Amino acid sequence: MKPKVVIIGGGFGGLNVAKSLAKENVEITLIDKTNHHLFQPLLYQVATAALSPGEIAVPIRSILKKQKNVQVVLREVGAISKTEKKVYLKNKDTYDFDYLIVATGTRHSYFGNDTWEKFAPGLKNITDALKIRERILLSFERAEVEDEPEKQRAYLTFVIIGAGPTGVEMAGSIAEIAHRTMLGDFRHVDTSKTRIILVEGKGTVLSFFPSELSSKAHKNLTEMGVEVRLNTSVTNITARGVQVGEEWIWTPNVIWAAGNQASGLGKTLEVPLDKSGRVMVEKDLSIPEFSNIFVIGDAAHACDKNGQLLPALGSVAVQQGKYIGKVISQDLAQKERKPFSYKDYGVMATIGRARAVAQIGTLKFFGWFAWLLWCFTHIMLLIGFRNKAVVMSEWMWSYVTYQRAARLITDRSYKDEQE
Amino acid sequence: MKPKVVIIGGGFGGLNVAKSLAKENVEITLIDKTNHHLFQPLLYQVATAALSPGEIAVPIRSILKKQKNVQVVLREVGAISKTEKKVYLKNKDTYDFDYLIVATGTRHSYFGNDTWEKFAPGLKNITDALKIRERILLSFERAEVEDEPEKQRAYLTFVIIGAGPTGVEMAGSIAEIAHRTMLGDFRHVDTSKTRIILVEGKGTVLSFFPSELSSKAHKNLTEMGVEVRLNTSVTNITARGVQVGEEWIWTPNVIWAAGNQASGLGKTLEVPLDKSGRVMVEKDLSIPEFSNIFVIGDAAHACDKNGQLLPALGSVAVQQGKYIGKVISQDLAQKERKPFSYKDYGVMATIGRARAVAQIGTLKFFGWFAWLLWCFTHIMLLIGFRNKAVVMSEWMWSYVTYQRAARLITDRSYKDEQE
Repeated sequence: MKPKVVIIGGGFGGLNVAKSLAKENVEITLIDKTNHHLFQPLLYQVATAALSPGEIAVPIRSILKKQKNVQVVLREVGAISKTEKKVYLKNKDTYDFDYLIVATGTRHSYFGNDTWEKFAPGLKNITDALKIRERILLSFERAEVEDEPEKQRAYLTFVIIGAGPTGVEMAGSIAEIAHRTMLGDFRHVDTSKTRIILVEGKGTVLSFFPSELSSKAHKNLTEMGVEVRLNTSVTNITARGVQVGEEWIWTPNVIWAAGNQASGLGKTLEVPLDKSGRVMVEKDLSIPEFSNIFVIGDAAHACDKNGQLLPALGSVAVQQGKYIGKVISQDLAQKERKPFSYKDYGVMATIGRARAVAQIGTLKFFGWFAWLLWCFTHIMLLIGFRNKAVVMSEWMWSYVTYQRAARLITDRSYKDEQE
Repeated sequence: MKPKVVIIGGGFGGLNVAKSLAKENVEITLIDKTNHHLFQPLLYQVATAALSPGEIAVPIRSILKKQKNVQVVLREVGAISKTEKKVYLKNKDTYDFDYLIVATGTRHSYFGNDTWEKFAPGLKNITDALKIRERILLSFERAEVEDEPEKQRAYLTFVIIGAGPTGVEMAGSIAEIAHRTMLGDFRHVDTSKTRIILVEGKGTVLSFFPSELSSKAHKNLTEMGVEVRLNTSVTNITARGVQVGEEWIWTPNVIWAAGNQASGLGKTLEVPLDKSGRVMVEKDLSIPEFSNIFVIGDAAHACDKNGQLLPALGSVAVQQGKYIGKVISQDLAQKERKPFSYKDYGVMATIGRARAVAQIGTLKFFGWFAWLLWCFTHIMLLIGFRNKAVVMSEWMWSYVTYQRAARLITDRSYKDEQE
């Protein structure tokens, strides 16, 4: 009997576990509730209409097509039994495992105010992104046909909550759409008057960046016409507006980029979680008492050598995924496991056209050069990921090679309602 | 007072009316219920996952950005009053007109069996295309995890009803996806066993093409593994299958490419309609007794010089749109109107890789050359239409020029439910 490896989640972490076991004599099952792997760092660009979903998402099945020791299952996991070594799907099917990897990422957390979700959608998957895109675009359309100046102003107001990379990137993009892209598209509204407000509870934007870069980013946002409100809490959100500190802002456009909560599956493992619901993992990323069960990526609370919590970054998930592949190979070869150690290549965030901040090792960059660096890095990663360069040739190419670029299943909720 | 021109519909017809009035001293209002102009000839490629919606749809607003005599309104029209010269929107707003152009296209007709629509979606807009794409892709996923062979077979069966260009193109594309693109993606099903059945009530596929080309197309489809059933009627469709002539076929995958019915707006004009609901128009495309109200494109029943009904083609709508622009200019200059005359450049349809049929004037083409011709023509039209060539450069470019490629509002029904 070949050892059975079950991976839950086809993001950066899960996919890299599967890939790094390509040559092992194991039986891998990768379970995901969507059919595609998502290049999440560019998701905000889908939400802001710069990219199509097909340009940043690829069917997991086609990525692993040639790796014959993997089967991909499009289903949702309901529970895990550690002692029985079984994964239970929501439809009651089960999968046995010898090794289990939980790589299920996070969802938004509204800090207990779950009713806010309806009015302030967050950004984690393609459906979220399309919903936000539609909301943004429709709001300008509504402003155009609105006679009451008060209501028109509300439609031209956007509040983004949370000034981490996603919040900063969203605010910058909306400012560009309103102040540049759409300029002249409308006859009855002046989109350059659009208000974009970025709210942050902490004292700086991009708080986990070096303070020099945070200030630069703050300055850039202000130059682009974004109002940044630091040390400010949001205390209420309704369909018609949001309470930002002392000010009530009328707007139907609130976007949530603040809190994260690890997916609920971690809870069913019955092991200690941190306050964001992440599983506290051992040095080899396994859970206490079960050295064959691992949690990686955003779902895990893992620390570096100095006991510092690793950030929720794609590069952490990628490295952890590769590490788990190696651990399983070592186990099979009856070698000893080494603890996981994260190699920090740096962080970067883009604010807008020719504006970005980047930290690489001890070097810090901002402005035009950081932006070029950001573009270059993401294009390289995306090309590696999609291996495509030309729109038109994409289409010709799909005819010649029989490949398809946009094999996505999005909007599951809509589909599920139909059935 | 400038003359007021109201155009309902931003397809090939409506858009060309607006564009050809660019230099006239008129006030144009273009009303559409979606925010985008759609390059419909390639819509089947979105339904079959070859293209992303953003690659064949552009915001009407941005196409007409620089034409200052046009305002674009994202709203739905409810009724028209010919004598009051008013258009009533569904939200009760009104627009006065001196000239009105109805260019609202068609929807599917289920020949009185409206309950079939739920089980056999048709293909007219982006939402339709995404729904069909999702249905096709999910069906393969379901087959992969299905244990009962009967059910698995049903998931791997596709029935397309209607063998006009859309039906032929859909059948060919699904055959390619199943028999080539997805080959090797799955572990428990052999997608090459997928059955694709194309059903047609008439005696040939592509019945309005020259018979030589129809036979070629039929032969090509058969070679590609499509079962073609001619002279066959569909008498029942349910969630679980379809009655095709004498045979009951188990499948949840039925696609409707058969009948069309002009949009309901024509009816509110209270003028004679043909049996497909199209407005019977005069030689100048106006309606009886109202020389200031025109119906064009698929919504109109217009004839050529020989009294032959003009086909439902983009090129007819484009020429009619340009003609109306000219008619209005002539009216304003108090010149006499000339009757509309259609210049037939030919027809073409693609069946699959290196397989197409085309008629240009008296020349007929098929096979590889016709396919190159088809590719070339559509790329030229699409480039003219979108003016983009490179996926990656598209994204870089959108950064540099502030333009956005994917400003689409799709899935209105979903959105509307939320509100």
